Amino acid sequence: MRISARNQIKGTVVEVTKGATTSHVRVDIGGGQIMTSSITNEAVDELGIKAKSAVVVVVKASDVMIAVN
Amino acid sequence: MRISARNQIKGTVVEVTKGATTSHVRVDIGGGQIMTSSITNEAVDELGIKAKSAVVVVVKASDVMIAVN
Amino acid sequence: MRISARNQIKGTVVEVTKGATTSHVRVDIGGGQIMTSSITNEAVDELGIKAKSAVVVVVKASDVMIAVN
Amino acid sequence: MRISARNQIKGTVVEVTKGATTSHVRVDIGGGQIMTSSITNEAVDELGIKAKSAVVVVVKASDVMIAVN
Amino acid sequence: MRISARNQIKGTVVEVTKGATTSHVRVDIGGGQIMTSSITNEAVDELGIKAKSAVVVVVKASDVMIAVN
Amino acid sequence: MRISARNQIKGTVVEVTKGATTSHVRVDIGGGQIMTSSITNEAVDELGIKAKSAVVVVVKASDVMIAVN
Repeated sequence: MRISARNQIKGTVVEVTKGATTSHVRVDIGGGQIMTSSITNEAVDELGIKAKSAVVVVVKASDVMIAVN
Repeated sequence: MRISARNQIKGTVVEVTKGATTSHVRVDIGGGQIMTSSITNEAVDELGIKAKSAVVVVVKASDVMIAVN
Repeated sequence: MRISARNQIKGTVVEVTKGATTSHVRVDIGGGQIMTSSITNEAVDELGIKAKSAVVVVVKASDVMIAVN
Repeated sequence: MRISARNQIKGTVVEVTKGATTSHVRVDIGGGQIMTSSITNEAVDELGIKAKSAVVVVVKASDVMIAVN
Repeated sequence: MRISARNQIKGTVVEVTKGATTSHVRVDIGGGQIMTSSITNEAVDELGIKAKSAVVVVVKASDVMIAVN
Repeated sequence: MRISARNQIKGTVVEVTKGATTSHVRVDIGGGQIMTSSITNEAVDELGIKAKSAVVVVVKASDVMIAVN
């Protein structure tokens, strides 16, 4: 499956924190950068996401903001 | 200003493509990774975003998905 | 590729309307239902999305609201 | 009230799973399709959403992605 | 229709700027505050949104961030 | 830091409700209006958000819908 989302970044899961219905997944995308994703527990289970999993972080371009210092 | 968004990644603007109301901004975040942002033309003008600008890419954790191959 | 997004609905593209940077894609998901997606022109071109394409509509659960009459 | 969101699909609630602050609502939209929504517990209570409720699933077009196989 | 979105703020449209496929709608919500919405041209036409229209600005809680100075 | 998000509204936190991984923050933006934000517990802790905190509510224009009665 190929998806329209413009941002698809390879990484390795560092940590999965499960809540009551929602999990937070932290992914090392290289270069010292960590990205955090908030997804359903159901998705975590179904895709078998756990520490050290090789994953792709996916973000739609319209959800990306730009800041300047 | 510090913001709640969990994903704040430093990068350098590669290209700004302006549409009628919406611009696409491509940012090199290092490690050969490019992120694409879709924001208003107004924001681009107000923040002075152009090629070679040093910027921070900002994404809320609830907008980040995880895929596996 | 399998993705965490909870909503993945098969359908057939009815119409693609291209703007300056953003396209609107209308997809027939069966049962008389049409879904509308707003994505970049770049994604439309890269995935070869056009009328009659077989596609999957993908939506993250946190972007889905519920209304009652 | 009429809303700008391009996707408004009638369905019937199949299941509501409540977490500590966030609920997951599964809705049968016909044709064998189930959609999943992640909303606040507060919204579930205020709208009286429960199994068998007749509801409308609402999604903004800019939150809809397209995938191809 | 009542919707799950936690943020529903009454206001008056100040300006509608139409692009090729996407419009920007600026709404005065009182107290000197202006909110900006990016929606499809189709929605603007269908709902008859124009300057001086009485409207409700709607935002899902999961799309709201918090910043501190 | 200045950010591209078109909606940046000053307010005062009324209440923080923490869940297992996700918090709901209610902010008084004046004129009798309350906005609700759903963010990670981690962000709440890191920014020290609590009742009576002076904050800025931040929303990207593409996440704002318009409704009419």
